[in-house]
Order: sequence, then C-alpha cells, then structure tokens
Amino acid sequence: MPNGNTAPGIIATGPIVADLEAVVADAAAGDRLPSVRELMARHRAGPATVQRAIAALAARGLVEARPGRGTFVAARASVPAAAPDHSWQTVALGPRAIDADPLEALLQVPDPDVIVLSTGYLPAELQPVAALGAALARAARRPGVWDRMPAEGLAGMRTHFAAAVGGGATAGDVIVCPGGQAALGTCLRGLAAPGAAVIVEAPTYLGALLAARTQGLRPVPVPADEHGVRPDLLADALHESGARLVYLQPVHANPHGATLALERRADVLAAVRAAGAFLIEDDAFRELSLGAPEPPPPLFHDDPDGHVVHVRSLTKPSAPSLRISAVVARGPAAARLRAARIVEDLFVSGPLQEAALELVAAPAWRAHLRRLRKVLRERRDALAAAVEEQLGPLEDRAAARLAGLPSGGINLWVRLDPGEDDRELARRAAAAGVVVYPGRPFFAAEPPAPFVRLTYAAEPPERLAEGVKRLAAVR
Amino acid sequence: MPNGNTAPGIIATGPIVADLEAVVADAAAGDRLPSVRELMARHRAGPATVQRAIAALAARGLVEARPGRGTFVAARASVPAAAPDHSWQTVALGPRAIDADPLEALLQVPDPDVIVLSTGYLPAELQPVAALGAALARAARRPGVWDRMPAEGLAGMRTHFAAAVGGGATAGDVIVCPGGQAALGTCLRGLAAPGAAVIVEAPTYLGALLAARTQGLRPVPVPADEHGVRPDLLADALHESGARLVYLQPVHANPHGATLALERRADVLAAVRAAGAFLIEDDAFRELSLGAPEPPPPLFHDDPDGHVVHVRSLTKPSAPSLRISAVVARGPAAARLRAARIVEDLFVSGPLQEAALELVAAPAWRAHLRRLRKVLRERRDALAAAVEEQLGPLEDRAAARLAGLPSGGINLWVRLDPGEDDRELARRAAAAGVVVYPGRPFFAAEPPAPFVRLTYAAEPPERLAEGVKRLAAVR
Repeated sequence: MPNGNTAPGIIATGPIVADLEAVVADAAAGDRLPSVRELMARHRAGPATVQRAIAALAARGLVEARPGRGTFVAARASVPAAAPDHSWQTVALGPRAIDADPLEALLQVPDPDVIVLSTGYLPAELQPVAALGAALARAARRPGVWDRMPAEGLAGMRTHFAAAVGGGATAGDVIVCPGGQAALGTCLRGLAAPGAAVIVEAPTYLGALLAARTQGLRPVPVPADEHGVRPDLLADALHESGARLVYLQPVHANPHGATLALERRADVLAAVRAAGAFLIEDDAFRELSLGAPEPPPPLFHDDPDGHVVHVRSLTKPSAPSLRISAVVARGPAAARLRAARIVEDLFVSGPLQEAALELVAAPAWRAHLRRLRKVLRERRDALAAAVEEQLGPLEDRAAARLAGLPSGGINLWVRLDPGEDDRELARRAAAAGVVVYPGRPFFAAEPPAPFVRLTYAAEPPERLAEGVKRLAAVR
Repeated sequence: MPNGNTAPGIIATGPIVADLEAVVADAAAGDRLPSVRELMARHRAGPATVQRAIAALAARGLVEARPGRGTFVAARASVPAAAPDHSWQTVALGPRAIDADPLEALLQVPDPDVIVLSTGYLPAELQPVAALGAALARAARRPGVWDRMPAEGLAGMRTHFAAAVGGGATAGDVIVCPGGQAALGTCLRGLAAPGAAVIVEAPTYLGALLAARTQGLRPVPVPADEHGVRPDLLADALHESGARLVYLQPVHANPHGATLALERRADVLAAVRAAGAFLIEDDAFRELSLGAPEPPPPLFHDDPDGHVVHVRSLTKPSAPSLRISAVVARGPAAARLRAARIVEDLFVSGPLQEAALELVAAPAWRAHLRRLRKVLRERRDALAAAVEEQLGPLEDRAAARLAGLPSGGINLWVRLDPGEDDRELARRAAAAGVVVYPGRPFFAAEPPAPFVRLTYAAEPPERLAEGVKRLAAVR
C-alpha cells in the first residue's frame, strides 16, 4: 500500500511554521532566519520537515531562500502591508450589479422607539413561538432527523401542502423549498431563460422583481386595479413581449391588497394558455385572509394542463425563521423545478420540516390562525381609520385608489397626491420615527402615481395611529 | 371608510359553491341547475351571493348561464376528464434541461442490505446527533430566534467562520449560507455572467459542475494530479478561455483526495491574478483531515487583493441537515455576493444558526472531530486494504493513479483498467448489493481513464471489505 506521506506536503510542520511566522513578524527585510540545523534542534524535527515549513513560508512570499547562504526575510514581509487593491474586481464582476437594497430595507430591524409600518413579517407577539419551539425541540431529537432528506421534501410536508392547495394537487406535485423567496427564485430560474421577458403586475411584490432582474429576466409590467390584473392588457403584453412566464399574486396581492375578481379568472387563464406560458401563482397571503369576502380558490384548480405553478409558504402566517414553502407543479416543468432545487441546495433541513409539519397538523394551528386574523383585522381597521383621519378621507380617493380596504394580507396601499415624492416622504417619516415603504420599488417601470405602503402587522392599534400621525406631520 | 365588500368577490359563497359542485358532479351535461330562488331559500342567502357562487362555477367552466333560461351543467363537466396535455410545456421550457441526476444519485438512501460506498455524508452513527439535538432544542425556545435574521448571518456564526478561516478574515467578510451547495451556487451566480467560462479541476466536485451548467456557465477543465491542479495548464486555460472565475478544492479534493502542493500555490495564485480572475476556494473537507500530512492554510491567507472567495461548510463534519455554510470574500465581490444571497432566500433560519453556533463552540465539538477522524482513518485504511486485496495492488497503479492514499476527506479514487466502463461497473455493482460512484460525472469533458469513487465514511470496516469484494466479483 502506498504511503500518503510520500506526497509533497507537511508533516507536523505547524509548530515550526508558527515559530517562523513569529520570527518574520519581528524581523526586518533581509534578516537571516535560524538555520535548518537550529530549527531541527528547537523542534526535534527532521531536516525534511523543517524544509517543508520553510517552503510553506516561501510559497507565501514571507521568506526567500538564497541557495548556499540560508533563508532570509522577504522584503514584502517587513514593510507595512499596502492597502489591498480590489479595483481589478470591478472589471471581473462586470456591469451586472445586483440590487438587493429594497429587500434589505424590508428586513431591517429598527430600534424600539421607531414605529414600523413597513415590515413584511409578523412581529414576535403574533408568532406561534411556543408551539414552534416545542415542535422543533421535539423534532431535534427524533432519530434520523439530522440525516439527508428527500430532495422534494418530507412526505408529510408534501401531503400537507397538497391538501392546502386542493384542486386535485397531490403530494407528488409538491416540492418543499426553504422559504417563499427561494421558491420564487427556483420558479423564475427554472421556467425562463436569462434574457427572457416575465410579465408582472404593476405594482407587484418587489422581491419577485429583484429576483427576476438578478437572473437577467426582463420584468414587463401589466396594470392591476382593485380587481387584480387587467386580463385584456395581460393578453396584449404577452403577445407584445413574447413572454412565456407570468408572475401574479391573485389573492391579497402585495402591496395593493387586490384579489383577482372571479370575472377575470377565466380571461387571465385564457391569455396564459393562448401564449403557451407558465403562470407563477404566488399565494403567500391566503392564510392571512381577514374574513368576508373569502378568497376564491387558487387558479391552480382551473388549470388541467399545467400552466399554473403554485407557490405557497408557511413563513407569512407563522414566523420569519420558519423558512418552509412549496412549489406545486405538473408535467415536465415539475421535473425541471425539482432538478433546479437539487442543484441549488440539495434539500431542506430535516428538523425544520418536521417542526413545520407538527405545527400545522396540531389543533393549535387553527387557533393561532383564528387569533391572528382577529388581531390583524383590528389592526387593519385601526390603521385605515388613522389614515382616513390623518391623511384625508379614503372615499375621496376612490377613483384613483388601486384597491380599497384589503380583505386580507398585511398592507394598506395609500395613494399620495400628484407631485408628492414617495421616497422623500419615506425619508422624512423615518427621521420623524415612523418607517413606511415608498411605492416606487414595487413597480417594474414608472408608477402611475406616488404611493406608500403601510403595513399593519407589526404594531398595536395605538402605535399604528401614532405612526400615521407622525407620517401626516411630515407630508 | 370604504366598505371592502363593495369589491366584486364572494361573501360566504363557500357552502353554495360546494352544493353546486355536488349537483354538477351527479348531473349530465345540459342538466338544469336549481334556480337562483331555490338556492336562496336552501342557503338563506341573498340573490347577489347566489349569483356570485354561480359565477364562480361558470368561471371554472363547470356551468353555463343561458340568459332568460337558467343555468346548465357545462359539457366538459360531465364527460370523463381528458388526460392533461402538458406537451405545450416542452416548447415553453426550451432546451435548457437541468441535469440533477448525478447529485440525486448521491442523495439516495439505499436499503440497509446494500453496502454504501457512494454517499457524500457522514452516516447517523458518526453524526453528533446528541449535541445537535440538545443545541437545537435549546435554540428553538430562545426569545427572538424565530424572527428575521441579519442577511449576512448571526454575528457569532460569522465570528466563528472568520476564526476558522484565519489569514486575517474578519466577521465582516463572512456571509452565512444554507449549506455548501447553496454557497457555491451564490458564488457561481454572483461572480460570472451566464455564458461565461469557469475553470474547474479535472476531476472536480460534480455538484459544482452541475451548478455551473444550470446557470449557463461553461465549465473548462484543467487536469489535476496527485499534487492538485496543474498551474501551467491553469494559466494556459485562463488565457485561452478568457475565464474570470476558477473553482478549486485545494485541500482533500472531491473526488480524488489531492491537496494542492505547497510548491504550486504561488503559481496558481499568480495565474489567477494575471487573469484578473476570482478563485472560489471550496474548503469543504478541511475538518476531515486525517492526520499527517496536515493541510496547508487556505489560499485565502496568501491573497491580499480579494481574488480568493473562500467557501466553508459545517455540514460535512456534522450532519446533512445542519445546512450551515459560509462564503468569505472581500471588496466589491463581497457586496455582490451578499446582495445575491438576499435576493435568493433572504436569510438563514435562526434556530439552525443558533444551534450550529452552540455546537461548534462547545468543547464536545473538538472531541467529536477527534473521534470522527480516528474512525475515518480506520475506515480509509480498511477500504484501501480491501481495494489492494481485491482489485490489485495499489502500488502497481502509481504511474496513472491521480492521488494515493488521501490524507483527508472521505473518498478513494480508484482507476480502473483501460477499456473498463465505469458506469456499467457501477450498475453491476448496485445489482450485486454495493453502491459505488462512477468517475465520469466528475469530469467536465472526457475523462483520461475510467475511475470509480469509493467512499469510506458510511460503513464500518467489515462492510467496506465486503463491499469491495462484491465490487470485485462483478468486474
């Protein structure tokens, strides 16, 4: 059997290297290193080992061997380190800058004095932390839970998502993903080639816009009103752009809260079918429906031929760190999306899937959702009342408002007066202690009017009212 | 305040819709539905509500309204559902097939009778499951742990990785990712535009090859021998291809186990610098060093100007479902990679990060690594002895063998005789109850010889020997 030690390498050179590094650090350029003999004695090592340690330092440019004379501290080691020069990177990276700023702003955790009307997540007091903690603690100790998981997810988790989606979805149609953003990325990457057009609503979820742009896709906007996306303009845009991919949130859309009207569903699907396109149905907010009108079933139900790829997440109705979502797809697209997931990160961590499954299967989950909806309804109404009181009657704006009081989700979408600057207002608001989200990043192109998005999830009613008061004061 | 119910939608139409669905299911095409008046009485609902329920079914193509005559079951509802036609998808998806098969084969969990010489992960009995379970159970109940996390990861986790990498890496250089495959994907996506060339060793980790291809990159192979990648050919390939990105595993490379020789490090870095290129240094196996010769420090140490982007993972030395890794980068590249991570999946789940941090900070982690190395050494030696006994003396193959007995990692890379078919042999082996991995998927282009990769991590010595016996029997 061969001896691995015959390969060039270092055998226990660590202490000698460390010793020499210390010598070099204290020495000046050109100083002579201790001889091989001295180092052999000092470290009780053989000559080959010492030579390997010296070679290691030489390879790093710290010392120079001068044959027959010894080894010397190299010039570069003793001068103060020059500032690193990263400028070559700008050329190597090229012009494909990735804009994550709008998403990052959503993720920021402001200090407690600041009133948050901007976050996309439930605050800690509305998260089912006790149930989650108990479920994960149990999952963490289950045999096999730390092992590799099936690429498409745990069978139980897939069954749960299939039942939640309905419309004939089976566990075999489900691919479990690590959160909604990851699921969107997989769909966008899998279903469209770089450079292709993807149709989005105007406005639409900014995380989808950024993911599309990062992948070299061209988001093409189609106006949405209070009844959801306009089917006539969708058909027009599909034809005009040649897009084979549409991204919609048909229920409680972020940011404007609209739900696609029943009357439009058939036309939307007909336009998608006529274009031979996929429709990514991002159903992130269905679990946050706030009562009547109840949301219509997923478009997935009305699509026998695999045009609709449905995306569902457990993060929104539970907690930000329960990063479990699902893609539901049929046909060759399902195979491609599954392959894309494997190549992207192999599988979703076992304990998280087990905990998520226990969470949603427990009776406490229904109770959590009921309580959550009640609290969100109160907060929505409180925020809407404050907006009406502080920013002017909502009714006056009806003609130009994208959507009225949303029947679900966590956002109010407030139109500003013509000429108001949404970003400037958001900056002034932040300085005044209230964080709101400007409307512009939710549009793929020019917005039709200035908007701000006000989220009612993260604060109790009295702080929502105080926040709007602060906002009104800086308009 | 506006009334949300004025938007078109459904108010408590659910029971009526369900009733009508049942009617439709039992009816023939053309049958008349109960009248609006009948349905109003049956469900104690107003006419608008009933009309909305009917519209919902009409939108799904289940019923047809014939003005003045009533509503009738649509033709399509009563015929047996046609087989779905997904053939349009093939055109929409285009020719960008994603090949995940080789990775998927690595992830398969074979039945217990089968001897596994193919997995890339530690088996359950070598995972620190008790420590992991306890750490995660504690983390699951920590306040705030379910909330959103910083995009770049927990401060403690970043500090850990910075210290593990050394060479002046700071916590600020670290981006925490959900597993090594995700980290590689982020680096490949962030550092090269679609269509660009990326230099890889031949052979190289197949997960990197598949990730590169999935992103539209062109993997360009450069031969590696028992001393790692050939610097002269690397410089040549960089020049020839115009690549600005190199992917290497300089320590205990997968599959061939080679460690880049000290003498080659300066030349490799010089070639990368001369090309103005990035070098992704995938250091997945450092923690699985099996004693002398100890591995040299990361190339990251010798790179002041930000060419080396270092990737480190906790998965390999712990357990498959501890999906925590890190990218360490400096300069504008670090900003781009961080932005890419945010757009890809926002952040890594809090409890997993907290558990990983507790795991690696505990004294038991060192003890785990010591025990693990001891067991892996025994298994490596047992597998090598079995290969020598069953497949012929390893020494006889020295001239053409890529690397001898590996000084770390979990793989033996065994050259077959000229003309042997590695994939056919793997198929025959599987039929004989031993899973081995053919060499071909580890090469970006034609392999110089047939190989099989034999992993010694997953089985005890006696089963390793039995596995090789089964393999030898089907050659």
